[in-house]
Amino acid sequence: MRRTRFVDMNCAAAQALEQIGDWWTLLLIREALYGTDSFSGFVERLGISRNILTDRLDRLVKDGIFRREPGHSGTTRLRYRLTGKGHDLLPVLVVLMQWGDKWILGPERVPLRLLDRDDRKPILPVTVRASDGRPLKIADLAFRPGPGASASTLKRFESIRAAGAGVKRTTGTGRKRR
Amino acid sequence: MRRTRFVDMNCAAAQALEQIGDWWTLLLIREALYGTDSFSGFVERLGISRNILTDRLDRLVKDGIFRREPGHSGTTRLRYRLTGKGHDLLPVLVVLMQWGDKWILGPERVPLRLLDRDDRKPILPVTVRASDGRPLKIADLAFRPGPGASASTLKRFESIRAAGAGVKRTTGTGRKRR
Repeated sequence: MRRTRFVDMNCAAAQALEQIGDWWTLLLIREALYGTDSFSGFVERLGISRNILTDRLDRLVKDGIFRREPGHSGTTRLRYRLTGKGHDLLPVLVVLMQWGDKWILGPERVPLRLLDRDDRKPILPVTVRASDGRPLKIADLAFRPGPGASASTLKRFESIRAAGAGVKRTTGTGRKRR
Repeated sequence: MRRTRFVDMNCAAAQALEQIGDWWTLLLIREALYGTDSFSGFVERLGISRNILTDRLDRLVKDGIFRREPGHSGTTRLRYRLTGKGHDLLPVLVVLMQWGDKWILGPERVPLRLLDRDDRKPILPVTVRASDGRPLKIADLAFRPGPGASASTLKRFESIRAAGAGVKRTTGTGRKRR
């Protein structure tokens, strides 16, 4: 019942969580990004039970996040590879990692550093950016209904507009509007 | 038992999920980013039960993601405001939204558009970037142990190194190394 409600929400983030919001799912994607591609590799690396792993991989294949491929030559073992849709989850994992490093662990307890392979420098913090690359905070954003906005989403926009400057009033950290 | 295991993992993303990975938690943060700041506002907007909401807000205040503040003048109603740690979750929500728009809903079903308030143009897709701003894929990243790497994480690095080029070999989409 709870699942159904989130899927019905007129929100792409809720829909995304429906496919990847399960703990094991995100950790499977993390392991795949690190290079694990076999059933036994996932079992070994995550200590996940074979039943749960079978269930999660089936769902991830069905959702088009992983695909099954024949094993390396000489074996009959299937490989589980991330699709384009799966690879596109990299920023989700990286932003969670950076947030955990900054706000939970702190600099002395960072387990893993991410560098650019080419210049060997640390990557930038993942941030929301304007079309010209400027970093944006919530107060710098404007929300507009898209083509898939439901009646209740449209009504919501009306009430935000009626309340004044919308989200702007709720934070004090943004730049002043020009 | 499952909770404990994730908290013990030597991974900042798993630690982050421990604090924000609950469905209701992320949706509460989404609503707060939109401007909702009262208990009754969350109940109305999310259809969440008062018991669950009390529990989640208590935990979020304890984790330093929300803070309680006195209500607007003339009321005794408490307000729930995102802290700096909470505001810093904006990229998590935005990247989930963009991934859902792209891979689940598609352009015709996008519920919500995010624009820069200043130039009124759509924001960029949230991506991982090198220090000079170049977008990076998984194959462009190098992983290095940080000061908080556990013995098992260090061992993991050894085995990746022993296996060859590490994550590089597992994808075919990255740039060639210079």
